[in-house]
Amino acid sequence: MSSHHIIRDKQEPALIIANGEACSIDLLEQLLEWSPTVIVLDGALERVVELGIKVDVWLGDFDRSFSSGNNYDDYPLKKIHTPDQNKTDLEKAFDYLIEEGYPSVNVVWATGKRMDHTLNNFHSMAKYGRDLKIVMIDDYSVSYLLPPVFEKWYPEGTSISLMPLAEAKQISSSGLLYELDCLDLCIGQRTGSSNVTKADGMVKITYESGQLLLMECHD
Amino acid sequence: MSSHHIIRDKQEPALIIANGEACSIDLLEQLLEWSPTVIVLDGALERVVELGIKVDVWLGDFDRSFSSGNNYDDYPLKKIHTPDQNKTDLEKAFDYLIEEGYPSVNVVWATGKRMDHTLNNFHSMAKYGRDLKIVMIDDYSVSYLLPPVFEKWYPEGTSISLMPLAEAKQISSSGLLYELDCLDLCIGQRTGSSNVTKADGMVKITYESGQLLLMECHD
Repeated sequence: MSSHHIIRDKQEPALIIANGEACSIDLLEQLLEWSPTVIVLDGALERVVELGIKVDVWLGDFDRSFSSGNNYDDYPLKKIHTPDQNKTDLEKAFDYLIEEGYPSVNVVWATGKRMDHTLNNFHSMAKYGRDLKIVMIDDYSVSYLLPPVFEKWYPEGTSISLMPLAEAKQISSSGLLYELDCLDLCIGQRTGSSNVTKADGMVKITYESGQLLLMECHD
Repeated sequence: MSSHHIIRDKQEPALIIANGEACSIDLLEQLLEWSPTVIVLDGALERVVELGIKVDVWLGDFDRSFSSGNNYDDYPLKKIHTPDQNKTDLEKAFDYLIEEGYPSVNVVWATGKRMDHTLNNFHSMAKYGRDLKIVMIDDYSVSYLLPPVFEKWYPEGTSISLMPLAEAKQISSSGLLYELDCLDLCIGQRTGSSNVTKADGMVKITYESGQLLLMECHD
C-alpha cells in the first residue's frame, strides 16, 4: 500500500490507528492520503506494519511482545512510552496531539472486537471533545461530537443517529424526518437513533448542554 | 447445525439474535443448546435460517425484502409485526419477553457493524435492565448490568471493565487490582475500563444508584 505523502502541516487531521477491528483497506488508504501524521497505538503496530503503512508515532506502554519477536527498535518512527495506567492508549494519543497543536484527528480501528474498549473509546471522545475535533470512522459508521449549533447539507434519506454521551439537553432539529423540539436525551432513558433526512438540503441541530454525538451509519 | 431441543420452560434464558455482526458458530451453538425460545430480529432472519437454526419468533416491522425474495410465510415460526417507530426491534423483543414472563435473555449479534445500533443496544439494555436480566454476548465480550450488590468468583487476572450507563454512583469493590472506593463513574467523565482480578476468589462490587455494566472481555 502506498503510504501518506507530502502533506506535513497540521491543517489536515492526524490519523490514529487504534487496536480494535481493522477497517477496509480502501477506507484506510483514503484517510492516509491526507494525514500529516499517523499514530499507531501499542499492540496494533504489527498489524499496521504488515499492511506496508508508514507510521510516524508509536505510542503505548509497550507491555506486550509481538508474536514475531520484533521490537521495532530499527524502525524510523517516534516511540513514545506512556505507562500511565489512569489513561487508555487512545487518551494518551489525544494528549500527544493536543500538546503538539493538532486541531483535529480521525480515529480508525477503535470499534469492534472488545466491547469494553469500544464503549470506552466513545467515552474518551466525549472526554477530549472540547480540546480536539475527533472523528471516529469504521466501515459502517462516521461519528463525531456536535458543537452547540451544527449545520450540514445531506442528501434525502441519509441515516442520522443522535447519541448523547452521556446526556444532551434541549436538542432541536430541522431537516429530519422525526424532528426534535427541545428534547433531552440520555443513555438509558432516550436516544435519537435511526433518524433520517427529510429531503436534499441543510440539516440543523442545536443543543444547550451536555454532549451529543452525530453518527452517519449505513448497513 | 443442530438446533435447540427439548427445554421448553422459562427457567433458561431466551435467546435474541439481533442484526449486527454474527458471532462464531461455536458460541451460537453453546447458547442455542439451552435456549427455550429463539427470537430473531427483522433483517437477520435470512442469515439465521441459512445457518440451519430453528427460529421460534420472528419480530420486526418487516420493512425490507430479502435478496432471496423469500418472505418466510411458510416457515413454522411466530411472526410478530411491530411497526412502532419509537422503539427498536431489540426493545420490542424485550417487551415481548417481559409480557410472556421470561425473567432473562441472552442477546447475540447486537454489537459490531453499525455503531449507532451497537451503542443503542447498550442503551436499551440499561433501559430494560430493571425488568429483564439481559446478557449481551459476542466473541470478545460478555456484558450485563450489575445489581446493587454483586458477588462472583473469578480466577486471578480476569479482565473486568466497569462501564456506567450513563452514570453509576458510590461504587466500591473488593478483589480487583485497582479497587474502587465510593467512586462515581459517568460516560464522558470517568469509567472503570481495563481492571483485573487480584487473585483467584470472590469479587464484590456494590453501588448506590445509576446503572453499572460489568464487561468480561478478552482479545
